Amino acid sequence: MGAPRLSPMARARPPAPRPLAEEAAIALVYDATTQAVMMATPADLEDFAAGFTLTEGIARDLSDIAELEVVEHPQGIECRMWLAADRAEALAARRRAMAGPVGCGLCGIDSLEQAARPAAEVTAPLALPRSEIPRATEALRAAQPLHDATRAVHGAGLWVPGEGLVAAREDVGRHNALDKLAGALARGGVDARRGAVVLTSRVSVEMVQKASAMGAPAILAVSAPTAAAVRLAEAAGMTLVARARDGAFEIAAHPHRIVERPPHVA
Amino acid sequence: MGAPRLSPMARARPPAPRPLAEEAAIALVYDATTQAVMMATPADLEDFAAGFTLTEGIARDLSDIAELEVVEHPQGIECRMWLAADRAEALAARRRAMAGPVGCGLCGIDSLEQAARPAAEVTAPLALPRSEIPRATEALRAAQPLHDATRAVHGAGLWVPGEGLVAAREDVGRHNALDKLAGALARGGVDARRGAVVLTSRVSVEMVQKASAMGAPAILAVSAPTAAAVRLAEAAGMTLVARARDGAFEIAAHPHRIVERPPHVA
Repeated sequence: MGAPRLSPMARARPPAPRPLAEEAAIALVYDATTQAVMMATPADLEDFAAGFTLTEGIARDLSDIAELEVVEHPQGIECRMWLAADRAEALAARRRAMAGPVGCGLCGIDSLEQAARPAAEVTAPLALPRSEIPRATEALRAAQPLHDATRAVHGAGLWVPGEGLVAAREDVGRHNALDKLAGALARGGVDARRGAVVLTSRVSVEMVQKASAMGAPAILAVSAPTAAAVRLAEAAGMTLVARARDGAFEIAAHPHRIVERPPHVA
Repeated sequence: MGAPRLSPMARARPPAPRPLAEEAAIALVYDATTQAVMMATPADLEDFAAGFTLTEGIARDLSDIAELEVVEHPQGIECRMWLAADRAEALAARRRAMAGPVGCGLCGIDSLEQAARPAAEVTAPLALPRSEIPRATEALRAAQPLHDATRAVHGAGLWVPGEGLVAAREDVGRHNALDKLAGALARGGVDARRGAVVLTSRVSVEMVQKASAMGAPAILAVSAPTAAAVRLAEAAGMTLVARARDGAFEIAAHPHRIVERPPHVA
């Protein structure tokens, strides 16, 4: 499907028409049963499927996903996965017990309990020099070809101190960009505990939950966190740096991982 | 619960600490069964509950909601609703038949069909003068006290040509801001067919679906639409104005409702 461009006739803004970001319905299907349908950028879907499966705790590692197949339909795209036998059983039991917070037959209090899942504690000892914070956000911006074209997508990357940005992914949805990053790292054999997750977006509770599921000890975001995200990062032992732009930043939780200079500099 | 403020000690950015936007788990519960749990700004929750119920097609109008009660819990907030008998039956049937696209037992293709629900056609004859477009986005920005404080929330308003901004609501989530607006308009007896929905955010498919459920014939957004949102607006007969900022804008669909001057000016 070709991206429609804005008609130049109708345009009041002077420069050349900018291509629009694509968005498609993506179904995440385990053992022939749909777990979720997300509107997402139809790119890097193997990363997306693997990352969602990991950050939502459906698989513990990639070996739990026995098979992954991406199938295009006129209405959207299916990421068809088959889980290892014990994980398939665990997911079926989870569905029987709670079936997710949507249309699930639970009363309000039970479903609120489920939504408020705590973030896994992160313990990795990261030392991120202050001077690398603006470099990390600049490196992420430089690794966003889709954003350069459309100015309408979010990015997520992993910055490893002393090494730089080791991976980056983009999506119209910020959660999806982070899931794609999680999948890309897992599939590339990169341990997220070695770095800080860099985000172009605001930091909500779900971003902290997903980053902690990846084991990442820090989030470094261009925009602001919510109050609940700060509380969750505090509780999870995660360093949270926000509003990192124009050379400045704010440390919202666990400042001990932000250091004055690289540890290897005497 | 008090909003944590960023510690001034840890702060590298000079000005005074800015309060953070709150975010809480909000359960939308119909007849003692949870339909959805959303992370949202815990304000204007009666508007949110009513608006979600309308834009998701669970109720046709406010009279279908027999009762609405907002109940706070330590884990979040429940919006408990009781539907009129025929709507309660319709929702139960919908749950039995499809149960929503999440964890629903549907195969991937069936759940993609469901996600790709078409937007209702909008037919209201609106005439929006070009000169009012920058005024509408400025008026929305001026009606965002929470954004002024936190710089971290989205806004949605209704601009009626010749009258101005008649309502505005805010939320950490853009869909929630639009649902709150839909509820505020319905509860205030304001017909959304008379105006353009003004958004601070990007325009995704779901924003077009919700605006069309409100009957609004136009969306006017500060940020970009996705390609799929443009196609949906085209199909629904909805005028879509995007990237309305710095005095410029782009018309992405159905330009006929954008006029040179107000109709009442000779």
